[in-house]
Formats: sequence, structure tokens, C-alpha cells
Amino acid sequence: MRKLYIIGIGAGDPEHVTMQAIRAMNAVDVFFFLDKGESKSDLVKLRQEICERYVSRPYRVVEAVDPVRDPSIESYTERVEAWHRQRALLYEAFISEELGEEDCGAILVWGDPSLYDSTLRIVEKVIARGKVSFDYEVIPGITSLQSLAARHKIVLNGIGESVSITTGRQLAANGLPPETENSVIMLDGNNSFKHLLGQNLSIYWGAYLGTEKEILLSGKLDDIAETIEATRREARQRHGWIMDIYMLTRPAVSNHR
Amino acid sequence: MRKLYIIGIGAGDPEHVTMQAIRAMNAVDVFFFLDKGESKSDLVKLRQEICERYVSRPYRVVEAVDPVRDPSIESYTERVEAWHRQRALLYEAFISEELGEEDCGAILVWGDPSLYDSTLRIVEKVIARGKVSFDYEVIPGITSLQSLAARHKIVLNGIGESVSITTGRQLAANGLPPETENSVIMLDGNNSFKHLLGQNLSIYWGAYLGTEKEILLSGKLDDIAETIEATRREARQRHGWIMDIYMLTRPAVSNHR
Ligand SMILES: C[S@@+](CC[C@H](N)C(=O)[O-])C[C@H]1O[C@@H](n2cnc3c(N)ncnc32)[C@H](O)[C@@H]1O
Ligand SMILES: C[S@@+](CC[C@H](N)C(=O)[O-])C[C@H]1O[C@@H](n2cnc3c(N)ncnc32)[C@H](O)[C@@H]1O
Repeated sequence: MRKLYIIGIGAGDPEHVTMQAIRAMNAVDVFFFLDKGESKSDLVKLRQEICERYVSRPYRVVEAVDPVRDPSIESYTERVEAWHRQRALLYEAFISEELGEEDCGAILVWGDPSLYDSTLRIVEKVIARGKVSFDYEVIPGITSLQSLAARHKIVLNGIGESVSITTGRQLAANGLPPETENSVIMLDGNNSFKHLLGQNLSIYWGAYLGTEKEILLSGKLDDIAETIEATRREARQRHGWIMDIYMLTRPAVSNHR
Repeated sequence: MRKLYIIGIGAGDPEHVTMQAIRAMNAVDVFFFLDKGESKSDLVKLRQEICERYVSRPYRVVEAVDPVRDPSIESYTERVEAWHRQRALLYEAFISEELGEEDCGAILVWGDPSLYDSTLRIVEKVIARGKVSFDYEVIPGITSLQSLAARHKIVLNGIGESVSITTGRQLAANGLPPETENSVIMLDGNNSFKHLLGQNLSIYWGAYLGTEKEILLSGKLDDIAETIEATRREARQRHGWIMDIYMLTRPAVSNHR
């Protein structure tokens, strides 16, 4: 039976890779890379570096160009769904054309496959289509959330409290998640924290975590919102892309932190 | 300057350890272990196994008995705070008595230090007391949350949705976190999911994740709540302890999953 590994490789630092991931990568015949184009080539570099450093047997790499999301589809969910369908066809072709009956393939996922990543959903779509048969296994990786917490040396929860993980889009539309003192915001291209001034929030912000470009900023949101916005703009211009994540905490917990 | 590493070692599987953790452990002179007594000796075993497998230079281990929480303190937060103060004294003594001026020490943390773990708070207490000086660094590890998701092959969020992480205590007191379709519940000794029947929820449950004792159950909560309760009781009796975690999802998202 063909086997497919979905491997979390951490969110920027090649040393975030786990022993479990290394063991799996060393059983792989073919790695499948979807490329997003030049501006995100740091991501491609991380994958290559991890393979080169940690895989000690011969392997092949198959690359494909990631389909772009169709901007003419208005609904966010539908746009993403359409994109997933296209990717499912690419994965299906990869499995049937590049993997022999006894071969082992792998897809390396940024961070952890369980958080804001579509790979598992796409693999389920391939299975639902029923054209190729294979076993698959998921290997967890360090998320950008944990990287943020480690670099700021913070705990995500106050004692006994809950934590929300949400997106910039949700934050802009609905404000902070209710009934929790601790929120982590991912996928925010629009500085959505700007709408939350005057609430005495603290922010822990990090960009390019785990890489040489890493930037960390923290303090009272009211004091540093502008600095973060300017830093973000400037870094994005300089590098051509940015990945950032932040934690917002309500004052109630600051004494537990 | 003395250095202290706070190292996340994953939540049960020794292979969850990262290359970054292995590199740090190989710079350590003294490991500091707080023990919780016989019934949790599997945790002690994981730490020992990780050191034995991955550390290739001589090291010392200093062990201390973890203070018990004082059941006469009624408030949960105060009880935990008092326990943290006692632990801070133990850590302080470890640093001043066991670590030479140029030595490197380490505390190995179950899962990731940023999630329902007190080590960072205690280290901050030691620093605030100002009796010993040292540098410290945090190294992230795979959490039980990610382990749960990987074993069930699920994504925590539906497309664009948020995720809540909460405790059994919060769930019993306040019900499911509002305005999110996806909740992960940790630290639940009381089967608090039982209070949520009749809401068409799905559950993904895992105990002893990453270990040989691992148990996975999933399905409609209404259908399997009793099975989980019975499995939990029986496993706890057999092994003397249990660690379990589960995800609850509202039907709205089941088509994205
Ligand atoms: C599509 S999501 C993928 C998340 C990934 N699966 C994980 O586990 O972290 C991308 C978002 O993750 C966050 N992110 C990922 N890597 C990051 C890094 N190195 N530094 C800062 N944020 C990062 C950003 O919020 C970014 O918008
Ligand atoms: C004190 S918290 C520590 C969490 C840890 N820092 C982490 O990152 O997973 C302990 C709780 O984590 C969960 N947990 C930890 N390890 C687990 C495992 N191997 N299997 C199932 N649940 C686990 C359980 O909900 C348990 O009550």
C-alpha cells in the first residue's frame, strides 16, 4: 500500500523539526512541494534545508505550482473551497503518477497541520474522490503560536483561564472573542488590532519567528500599536512578504503573567 | 552567567522532542526534576528516556518532591498561587545550590511550556525575588492538543473559524465557549462533556496520547459519551492515573472537516 506522510516542520526554525518527523522523512521516496512563487521563497528554502540537513538517504522532489485563489469568487469560504478542489487534483495526480504501489510520499507542512492549514482537508477530498488508494499519517510540528510564546517567554493562559485562537478577519468583524482574557491572532494582513485601542490590552507581537529576520515587540497595545504598524509595513517592504502573529491579553490576567 | 533552559519535551512520545531541544539538552550540566509520586511515574520515565536517548555527554540529575497543593485553601487560583510560591523556593534553591556560576541547568516540561504549565510563572517568581541571577530561554514542544489532532487526523479550525482551548472546570461552570465552533478541553477530571448532550456535538477524545497506552475515540457526543466515561474509568483504574483531552465541534463545521 502507498503511504503518505503529512509532516509538520515547525514555523521557521529548521531545528523545530521533531525526531518523529526526521524518522518519517527518512522513509520517504518522494517529497511533494507546492510552490507559491518567488516572494515566499523563504518557505521553500526552509523545506529544502530541512531535507538536506536531516534526510540521509536518496529521495526525489516533485514540485508543482500552487493554484492561485480566484478573486472573482466573493465568499471567502467558497473561494477557499474552490482552491482546495484544485489542489486536490494536484495531490491526486502526485499520488497516482509519482508514487509506486509500495512507495512512500510526504508533504511538509509549515507549522502544524492542525492549525490554519488545508493539507488534511485536501487529502480527505482526494480520498472522497476515490480514484487513488493510500494510507496516510499525520506528524505534528511546532506551531507559530508556540514559537511566539517561547520567544516572549509567556504562558498563553492565566491560571485556569481559557485561550482563543482566531484570525485577523474574525477580529476585525467581531472584535475580541468574548469571555476569555487571552486571544492569539493569526492571518492578519490588516493590523486589525488598531480597532481595539483604549481597552487597556497588552500585546505580544512576533514576525518571521524562528528565522534570521525575526522581530519581537510587546507592551501596552495603546502605546505600541503605531510602532507595530510601522514596523510591519517597513519589514514587508524590505523582505517582500511578512508572516506575523500576536497575542492580546485583557488586564484581568496581567497579574498572573 | 548561569543559564536555565525551560524545555518542552512533547506530551508522551519521546520522538516528539525537537532538534532544538536535543541541542539544548546537550549543553546542560544539571537537570532538575520535580516528582509527583509513584502514580505518575510514567511522566518521570519519559524524562529519563529522553535524557538517555538524546543526551550524549555526562550530566547530573537533581530530584525534589513536588509540594502538594493545600486542599484547605478554597479558591482554586489562590491554592495554585500558594503551590507556585513553594515551587519557586525549590527552584531558587536548585539554581543557587546546584548550578555553578558558568553552569547550565534545565527543566523539562510536559508538552509545551506555554499551555497549562506553571514553570514559566514560577521562574518569573524566582526572578522577582531577586536572590539569584541567571539567564533563561524557552524551547517549545509538541502539545497534547497537537498530538490529539494528529492522531485523529483533524484540523482544529473550520475554514476561517476560531478555536477555543479551555478546561473541564470552565466547561462545567460556563458551558461551551460562545461564538466558536471548535473547542478543545484539557484538565477535565469529571467528564464535563456529559452536560452537553442533545446539542448534536461531535467529540474527538484521546487518552495517554503518544504512549503505548494510547486510546482514541470519536463520534457523535450523544452516541459515545457513556462509552468514553466507562473507558476513562476503567483505564484510570488499570493504570492508576489518566491524562485525557478532547475536542468538541458544533455541527456547523462538520462539512468543512
Ligand atoms: C496559513 S497559517 C499557517 C499556520 C501554521 N500551520 C502554524 O502551525 O503556525 C499562516 C499564519 O501563521 C502565522 N505564522 C506562521 N509562521 C509564522 C512565523 N514564522 N512568524 C510569525 N507568524 C507566523 C501567521 O499569523 C500567518 O499568517
Ligand atoms: C497540566 S496540563 C499540561 C499540558 C501540556 N503543557 C501540553 O502542552 O499539553 C495537563 C493536561 O494536558 C492534557 N494532556 C497532556 N498530555 C496528554 C496526553 N499524553 N494524552 C492526553 N492528554 C494529555 C490533559 O488534558 C491533561 O489534563
